[in-house]
Amino acid sequence: MPEPPVSSPPLSAFARVVEPFRVMDILARAQAAERAGRDIIHLEVGEPDFRTPPAIVDAGRRALERGATRYTAAHGTRELREALARDYRSRHAADIDPERIVITNGASAAILLALAAGVDPGDEILLPDPGYACNRQFVAARGARPTNLPVAAEDAFQPTARAVAEAWGEQTRALLLASPANPTGTRLERARLAEIAEVVRARNGLLIVDEIYGQLTFGAPERSAAALHPEVVVINSFSKYFAMTGWRLGWMVVPEAWIESVRRLAQNLFVAPSTLAQSAALAAFEPETEALLQARVSELERRRDVLLEGLPALGLEVQARPDGAFYIYADCRAHGGDSEALCADILDRVGVALTPGTDFSPAHGRDYLRIAYTQPEPRLREALERLHGVLGRG
Amino acid sequence: MPEPPVSSPPLSAFARVVEPFRVMDILARAQAAERAGRDIIHLEVGEPDFRTPPAIVDAGRRALERGATRYTAAHGTRELREALARDYRSRHAADIDPERIVITNGASAAILLALAAGVDPGDEILLPDPGYACNRQFVAARGARPTNLPVAAEDAFQPTARAVAEAWGEQTRALLLASPANPTGTRLERARLAEIAEVVRARNGLLIVDEIYGQLTFGAPERSAAALHPEVVVINSFSKYFAMTGWRLGWMVVPEAWIESVRRLAQNLFVAPSTLAQSAALAAFEPETEALLQARVSELERRRDVLLEGLPALGLEVQARPDGAFYIYADCRAHGGDSEALCADILDRVGVALTPGTDFSPAHGRDYLRIAYTQPEPRLREALERLHGVLGRG
Repeated sequence: MPEPPVSSPPLSAFARVVEPFRVMDILARAQAAERAGRDIIHLEVGEPDFRTPPAIVDAGRRALERGATRYTAAHGTRELREALARDYRSRHAADIDPERIVITNGASAAILLALAAGVDPGDEILLPDPGYACNRQFVAARGARPTNLPVAAEDAFQPTARAVAEAWGEQTRALLLASPANPTGTRLERARLAEIAEVVRARNGLLIVDEIYGQLTFGAPERSAAALHPEVVVINSFSKYFAMTGWRLGWMVVPEAWIESVRRLAQNLFVAPSTLAQSAALAAFEPETEALLQARVSELERRRDVLLEGLPALGLEVQARPDGAFYIYADCRAHGGDSEALCADILDRVGVALTPGTDFSPAHGRDYLRIAYTQPEPRLREALERLHGVLGRG
Repeated sequence: MPEPPVSSPPLSAFARVVEPFRVMDILARAQAAERAGRDIIHLEVGEPDFRTPPAIVDAGRRALERGATRYTAAHGTRELREALARDYRSRHAADIDPERIVITNGASAAILLALAAGVDPGDEILLPDPGYACNRQFVAARGARPTNLPVAAEDAFQPTARAVAEAWGEQTRALLLASPANPTGTRLERARLAEIAEVVRARNGLLIVDEIYGQLTFGAPERSAAALHPEVVVINSFSKYFAMTGWRLGWMVVPEAWIESVRRLAQNLFVAPSTLAQSAALAAFEPETEALLQARVSELERRRDVLLEGLPALGLEVQARPDGAFYIYADCRAHGGDSEALCADILDRVGVALTPGTDFSPAHGRDYLRIAYTQPEPRLREALERLHGVLGRG
């Protein structure tokens, strides 16, 4: 590569401090090892091994054939917003006006849009720690300030109404939480969420609930926070449950009073979401697809059980039972106090790629690691065996 | 629709003032008229009537068939970045390291990324007036301040180095310009751009050049600003020249010293661009596609000529000859001082949809209107005839 130019325009303060995902380092090392001929078990990236369901792919192909490649409305096609509203009714018993739904280029664009609409530069935004790493950067990109809200293992790594009330300060504008959460896979009970929503509402604040793993739950189905209050902003995505990661399609449910402004913001900031992805996603709600996706959820639950059974013998403690998504967040203090060094060591010695907790928790990330069960059961069993060789106490 | 809830979370100051595009009002009125059975000639929206070239659609279909639906790297596939680097070499004689190219979800995401990387909240950003309406909102979303840089018809509605030097203040951080520009269709000569780049560089500032219409030029081909200085940030898109609007795919060329930070920002803010769109876009550089696209550029040039010939008789003065994109910006003061009222009147009386200049110019928008020649020649001739009925001086 050529020399860096002498006088590049200076980076923003934000860009200078934005941290890389440690998982990308792990991934790069894992890929290098693979190129050198090693067999690596990838449990680091947050993308399941499932393909987009055939009916969705077929709908995409048909859309291509009929030339559906021009802009749609900025907030998405009426057809897809109506399909989502029907899904809210049947799956969550929630009566959501399709006008309140805004289709976006993935959940990322939805969060950017929610923050543009409801947050001013300088505002403080409460973010659970541990939590999804990017949330800090979404907030910083808006010129607002991310504020850690510590969540405890005994509370299922989810906020309590009391903790939210105590953390809410003069400058606090919003709380952004997720259920099920990344990296813990834990859910927030609806009763507790309702209490939290009251605390936020009493402060005229904004509650954003990220439900991108909302349909990847084990046991009782998750009821959308959209059913709770019409003021809650709900973020969702076709990426995870519908296995459409690379299509980049998400959506948001906004308060009635926000509709006009959010559409204007969407016009300005994103023009429109992908036409092709929107056409394809219409097939996401067909019974045949739903059956396939539910079978995958059962498969994920079995994978979780395999790991939960095997981890204790490895000195990896799971303090809060995960009941959604495809993540396990494990305490690794029994193996020294540095999850980054531990993950590097595990990868080097036995070829299992895991993510250090430092990607998710400024406070305690060195004590934890995340396992993404995005590989079939036999591979997970093999991963446990390999880990036994390096972590086992037997 | 249900009553708005009593206590919706307050909108941000930005969201409260963000203006709708007037073109959306025109479009809505035009569509209502069509539903009522009227024939409307659409010259308002910035999307050509061309379909995505068949080779690109085929490549998209093949990508679907082989299951290319998972995440790519945040900055895009190596294959597509290398294809773009080859195109910079052959089309612009510019030696661009593929590592400096970042693929994005449309030019919109590229601009958001450029501002996140190079601008801090509170900074002033110079924006030519008239110019692309969304640029003001991109800047505001970052918590920075858009500052109008008036550009004159006698300067082809493009900035001069002197005007940039005079407008550059203590708080100024960047200049964002476009060539060819929207709404004027005018180009910035490379010699003048080089002078401007020097002014910006001498102030340690950031120059962002939007080239989304860069290949839609008549006469001498446009040489990319990426060939000028390695510090210029160049924004581009597959939407316009490659007729891939609905696919949402763009890219950016960044300074060498920015690569690492911009990739981190892209990981955090957007995860990745559409996998399918990236696969399809690889077919954009095949000779067969290039021949088709060049024929379309010639077609656009003929359309421009039809309009330029017809407009003077209508009292619509084109003060700076457009030589790119698919827009004509015309002075409509001969018909009163209110372009919004004029466009509404024209639509109502003769069914031709045009965009009032107020979408593009805070200062003089009422004096101008924009014509997007996104319809075939016979329709343009009919539009001229219809306009004659309401504006003609004959």
